[in-house]
Amino acid sequence: MGFDPPHVAELSPPQRVLMGPGPTSLPPAVLQALIAPITGHKDPFFLHVMDETAELLRYLFQTSNEASLSLPGTGGAGMEAAIANLIQPGDTAVVCVNGLFGARMAEIARRHGADVVQVTAPWGKPIDPDDLRKALAGRKARVVTTVHGETSTGVTQPMEELGQIAGDQGAFLVVDVVATIGGMPVIPHAWNSAICYGASQKCISAPPGVSPITVNLETMDYIRNRATPVPCWYLDLGEHRNYWFAKERIYHHTAPVPLIYALHEALRLIAEEGIEARWARHALHNRAFVAGLEAMDLELFADPNYRMTTLVSINVPNGVDEARVRGELLREYGIEISGGLGPYAGRMWRVGIMGHSASHNNVVLLLSALERLLARQGYGSPTGAGVAAADAEYSAAAAEYSAAAAQAAVA
Amino acid sequence: MGFDPPHVAELSPPQRVLMGPGPTSLPPAVLQALIAPITGHKDPFFLHVMDETAELLRYLFQTSNEASLSLPGTGGAGMEAAIANLIQPGDTAVVCVNGLFGARMAEIARRHGADVVQVTAPWGKPIDPDDLRKALAGRKARVVTTVHGETSTGVTQPMEELGQIAGDQGAFLVVDVVATIGGMPVIPHAWNSAICYGASQKCISAPPGVSPITVNLETMDYIRNRATPVPCWYLDLGEHRNYWFAKERIYHHTAPVPLIYALHEALRLIAEEGIEARWARHALHNRAFVAGLEAMDLELFADPNYRMTTLVSINVPNGVDEARVRGELLREYGIEISGGLGPYAGRMWRVGIMGHSASHNNVVLLLSALERLLARQGYGSPTGAGVAAADAEYSAAAAEYSAAAAQAAVA
Repeated sequence: MGFDPPHVAELSPPQRVLMGPGPTSLPPAVLQALIAPITGHKDPFFLHVMDETAELLRYLFQTSNEASLSLPGTGGAGMEAAIANLIQPGDTAVVCVNGLFGARMAEIARRHGADVVQVTAPWGKPIDPDDLRKALAGRKARVVTTVHGETSTGVTQPMEELGQIAGDQGAFLVVDVVATIGGMPVIPHAWNSAICYGASQKCISAPPGVSPITVNLETMDYIRNRATPVPCWYLDLGEHRNYWFAKERIYHHTAPVPLIYALHEALRLIAEEGIEARWARHALHNRAFVAGLEAMDLELFADPNYRMTTLVSINVPNGVDEARVRGELLREYGIEISGGLGPYAGRMWRVGIMGHSASHNNVVLLLSALERLLARQGYGSPTGAGVAAADAEYSAAAAEYSAAAAQAAVA
Repeated sequence: MGFDPPHVAELSPPQRVLMGPGPTSLPPAVLQALIAPITGHKDPFFLHVMDETAELLRYLFQTSNEASLSLPGTGGAGMEAAIANLIQPGDTAVVCVNGLFGARMAEIARRHGADVVQVTAPWGKPIDPDDLRKALAGRKARVVTTVHGETSTGVTQPMEELGQIAGDQGAFLVVDVVATIGGMPVIPHAWNSAICYGASQKCISAPPGVSPITVNLETMDYIRNRATPVPCWYLDLGEHRNYWFAKERIYHHTAPVPLIYALHEALRLIAEEGIEARWARHALHNRAFVAGLEAMDLELFADPNYRMTTLVSINVPNGVDEARVRGELLREYGIEISGGLGPYAGRMWRVGIMGHSASHNNVVLLLSALERLLARQGYGSPTGAGVAAADAEYSAAAAEYSAAAAQAAVA
């Protein structure tokens, strides 16, 4: 009466060059951590790993918030945790929406019983602070949410202004830093941010599956004393705080041990590199890649004054089949990039400049492949102009670095 | 103004013998999968891995349910998903509680607005089907929940009777199989079960962090057509079903790729071993371990007619300091076992007979270590009686196996 066992071959994944908006490739120390011996989730050694991970997360987030920890779920779990822990039924949530992930925040807030007021901007444009100010005028909002870097568009926001406005009105500011944390400056304190949450698999270059989050003290106090219980037990931040930081380390869930090990190592590498140096590295590879695109007369989608360095959104030229380019990149080069989402499906490419994948070799390879595959569809010709422009950026940066080093040696 | 990077050493975990109730040690093929090259979560290769994983999950659950998939969270995420997707505010949930995890189900059901009716039994005893029948009489319950194997007590339940009663009343039966799936017979169909969910890190021997779940067709239809949206977006089973099985593979979250790879390999090993053979292997190591305990005059906690094979709960003898024994096991042998939970803290040991950790060598080592450490506290003497009794069970099983093989060769 039983079922026959299926015949399935041993797993043998292809080697990809991951240049989409995450996951990225993993550094050797992170891979090694994934297969390090597992301990129990209450083993003294593992509790020590959690303590160190929290300390490294505080550095990553440039914060002294005690409640800096990692949730056992993807970035979407971080998003829902932030909203579900702050919203109580009937609360107003002012949600900034200028892309797919802003829209998702609105949906989640509605599911948790919020009265949702949207502040919108067109895809590709940042939120206008005046629009947020107007939305908050004469309204008591519990929460304001925004996406620091919209992965769907490549746009960033005027965070300090938005944070100031939310703070002036006494609203908790929730910031999605999934696509920016570890790659661009994220400064919760300067933004008046109550909660920032990210994801492990983008600029941090750990495997997907955990969500770093930081909650300031006032916000954690609010959560622990709110009148109604947090509806999502799995994402109750009070419970997570008690497992990570209470003296008794109260059991809540069985920690995803290998993912925490891997996150620990990825964060340790970030501390070794230095967070400012890491931001600068992402900016450099972005400059080189964008210079290459411009040399190929490709246009970027995002507002030039509000572009992320960690994600480049490119308009697909007229007459070019975008899915064909992505398919050929994958089949002929093993390179993964992403297409557009929602209304921009078929009209946009999205390239990640993220973590361990953000490298000179990857930038050069992708520019060279793009040039050749576009020429195949009649767009431009493979003159190497893209790679040359990128190389010029890299050379300028190297010269600048040498000059600074020489000056430091003299001083 | 920035923060100084913390100085943290490279991770170097100790090698443990994991004999608690999960996580277990990992087979080599599973470790190898963890560091296999990552692909994107919509890569054709990865979608194929998801398809194979779903097929392997159907074999694991002995079901033809299409919606057999893995949630991106621990067993607690599976528990909350099952409850949150079925309960709508004001619904009645009849929750069987005879241990910690039953109590947790009641708490989660309450958070989701259910009117909770508890059917209780003392810790160590199974739920009495008559008690469930009485609780359901004259009451329209949306959901009945039960824990197939209570990790807090080592007790299993009369599942077919409970399932029959829930089915007769038209309630959806949710079964927690976290501590039994892959180690003891789990037959959702025979139990009338609407949803069964498990965890990766126990008898399946994959790393912790994902939760296998199976939902029957009628239940999935109910979820997709319910009047109010599922409050937890992250755990909305309709969304997960669309990512795993809809033709367009609608994006919901970035899959925890290495954990899915590892789960795929762990399930492939289960299919190779054969699920019935695996159940028999767990039962054999349980028999040998229990024989050893009994030879040392140790008493088991759970009702002898309803004992799990995958978790053995042991009463701590009078005069023995249970935490000291666990501490010495960890320090001197690197062996992890667990203590009692809730009211049984300090009075119980809990030993997992689970997956890759369920082996002859581990059973013998733990019995031998326990005997020596108990003698140190004045309980018994290290005569080797425990190991001898276990060996007798193993010898009897080997003889039986040889006889059966000889008979098969003749036939």
